[in-house]
Amino acid sequence: MGDNLSATGSIGIVSARRAQFDTPLVFRSGAVLPRYELVYETYGTLNAGKSNAILICHALSGHHHVAGYYADDLKNLGWWNNMVGPGKPIDTDKFFVIGLNNLGGCHGSTGPSSINPETGQPYGSSFPVITVEDWVTSQARLADFLGISQFAAVIGGSLGGMQALQWSLSYPDRVRHVFAIAAAPHLTAQNIAFNDVARNAILTDPDFHGGDYYQHNVVPTRGLRLARMLGHITYLSDNAMADKFGRDLHAGQLNYGYEIEFAIESYLRYQGDKFAAYFDANTYLLMTKALDYFNPAHDSGGDLNPVFARAKASFLVVSFTTDWRFSPQRSREIVRPLLHNRLNVNYAEITSTHGHDSFLMQDPYYLDVMRTYLDRVARECGQ
Amino acid sequence: MGDNLSATGSIGIVSARRAQFDTPLVFRSGAVLPRYELVYETYGTLNAGKSNAILICHALSGHHHVAGYYADDLKNLGWWNNMVGPGKPIDTDKFFVIGLNNLGGCHGSTGPSSINPETGQPYGSSFPVITVEDWVTSQARLADFLGISQFAAVIGGSLGGMQALQWSLSYPDRVRHVFAIAAAPHLTAQNIAFNDVARNAILTDPDFHGGDYYQHNVVPTRGLRLARMLGHITYLSDNAMADKFGRDLHAGQLNYGYEIEFAIESYLRYQGDKFAAYFDANTYLLMTKALDYFNPAHDSGGDLNPVFARAKASFLVVSFTTDWRFSPQRSREIVRPLLHNRLNVNYAEITSTHGHDSFLMQDPYYLDVMRTYLDRVARECGQ
Repeated sequence: MGDNLSATGSIGIVSARRAQFDTPLVFRSGAVLPRYELVYETYGTLNAGKSNAILICHALSGHHHVAGYYADDLKNLGWWNNMVGPGKPIDTDKFFVIGLNNLGGCHGSTGPSSINPETGQPYGSSFPVITVEDWVTSQARLADFLGISQFAAVIGGSLGGMQALQWSLSYPDRVRHVFAIAAAPHLTAQNIAFNDVARNAILTDPDFHGGDYYQHNVVPTRGLRLARMLGHITYLSDNAMADKFGRDLHAGQLNYGYEIEFAIESYLRYQGDKFAAYFDANTYLLMTKALDYFNPAHDSGGDLNPVFARAKASFLVVSFTTDWRFSPQRSREIVRPLLHNRLNVNYAEITSTHGHDSFLMQDPYYLDVMRTYLDRVARECGQ
Repeated sequence: MGDNLSATGSIGIVSARRAQFDTPLVFRSGAVLPRYELVYETYGTLNAGKSNAILICHALSGHHHVAGYYADDLKNLGWWNNMVGPGKPIDTDKFFVIGLNNLGGCHGSTGPSSINPETGQPYGSSFPVITVEDWVTSQARLADFLGISQFAAVIGGSLGGMQALQWSLSYPDRVRHVFAIAAAPHLTAQNIAFNDVARNAILTDPDFHGGDYYQHNVVPTRGLRLARMLGHITYLSDNAMADKFGRDLHAGQLNYGYEIEFAIESYLRYQGDKFAAYFDANTYLLMTKALDYFNPAHDSGGDLNPVFARAKASFLVVSFTTDWRFSPQRSREIVRPLLHNRLNVNYAEITSTHGHDSFLMQDPYYLDVMRTYLDRVARECGQ
């Protein structure tokens, strides 16, 4: 989704690991997954008191490879390599940091493209629709597996921020600090509308085959490409797009046809093609549904005040001025019920030109806010 | 695109007419159309001095049926029936009002779905890519045909507003008043990006057949449906969507699947299906390209000041506070070069909740602004 910066101060070579879970997971939908695997990476060292663990939750297209690079693929830097590493805001000299690929993903954890051991075929359309609550349940099992009873912090941006918030509600005693960055307490009708267009692009692609395209040896590339193109429009600000592309022509002149004409078209189509070549369409559908469903105030008529009464964590809420997907107003909707419940909350509204993608960017003020807060978290756990 | 209101004060029964043009039209692209037809409607009476004619230019999905209804289809009210009619702001008791379907359209004027007399097949992919300038040239020929040497006003919203602006540049002596409503002096990168996603949905639909789907007896319904769904998101404001749909569930409960779940999904899919059933995909492509290309400042390095030096008309520029497709800021970009050139310009920024669609809505303040300005236009031509 965003730029990865130089490997200076990088954590260096990392490798992914797998954890197998044989206790059935009951989803919020009622569906049951008898067993599953999660792929994850860890950076830094768990201290003797096991008090310095940080969980990083990923957004729509993210995964477990948060920082560092692989021995056999030195250019494959983690997606938050500018934030996580020795001496970086999420300092791996102080914290034991965990990144995982969420259940339902397409980067190694059990998901629609994984083989269902009961059938010998990919799960495809039979993979359960998943919610943020389900993810947090599966993440808590990963914490159990790693011997971590309480996280120093759970940190996420966008959909990852929703998971961090859910941690404070599902497991109030298992997280001391929650970072909700560029997030929202639920999607608006407009947010859902964009997701629905993206989903319909995939669902109506003739190569989708009701979600069981694996058996047909095809991929709904057209739909996934459109979904990603549309997504990118919502990740960038209008101003950032204007500054970066404006009305620049791709080849310097108008063609009066439907090939790439403006630079912005070249960018979008490239992003769409790149994404469609590796991302699983069923995972994309699941991720957008998890976004749509997230609504902690669903059972309280939209009122978050009674919901956060059970939270115990301290919170850092961060928004970005040009983010129109989850605007600062949406972050303030998170802050209000936290204040109402007299929870410790810090709120930072960062002036940034990069829209929703800002949470992945190298903004010095944003990084300072993160660093300052995390220094306090480190001191609390004696690091 | 918007609501049509009751037929009270309606102009009553109207009928469409056709005009044939046998002089070749040379497009800005260099392409030539040897002959073409335009379908149009007129309301009211042209006065003896032929000084009370008003041209209405339509937006992306509009057409010639601006007001009234048809004898054999009483429910088919014109798309601006709330604005045009006896005693209405564009008062047909005072003005001779003309609506046309633009060249390239799919409502009766020559377009991609028309039969090319030279081949006996639909034009399809061979229909030239059209620009706002080309439309204005063809509209001027329609004016010639009707014996109108100068319009009292050329009026349009959105893409229609761009045509109205172009009239003041292409034919400075043939228009006294230009109404640019919910318009912009050019598309931004974000505007083009949305158009490109819509176009790619159509272009990559397997039923598109390179634009020659007519011969295959299919229609790229999937692509057109996605394009329209996406369009609707940009026509409505975030707030209007929130007020109208919020997170309401279509059937009162979550389904954990990909059928319609939220009310906003039901609305979007319905709009998409309805549109895809009648609108021509090639026309949709042409309309979005005309939007992308419109840029009067293209040859002056983005500076509109020298461009409007040749304009002579007076202007009414109208914007709507919640329009995020063409925001008030974009209208002010139109006002500035008009002021620079000491042209008469009135600017109204209407507080409205309906987003870009506001220009079609029954907002009393907006209608009053239009009425007041048009009363002056009527007095000038002795009506």
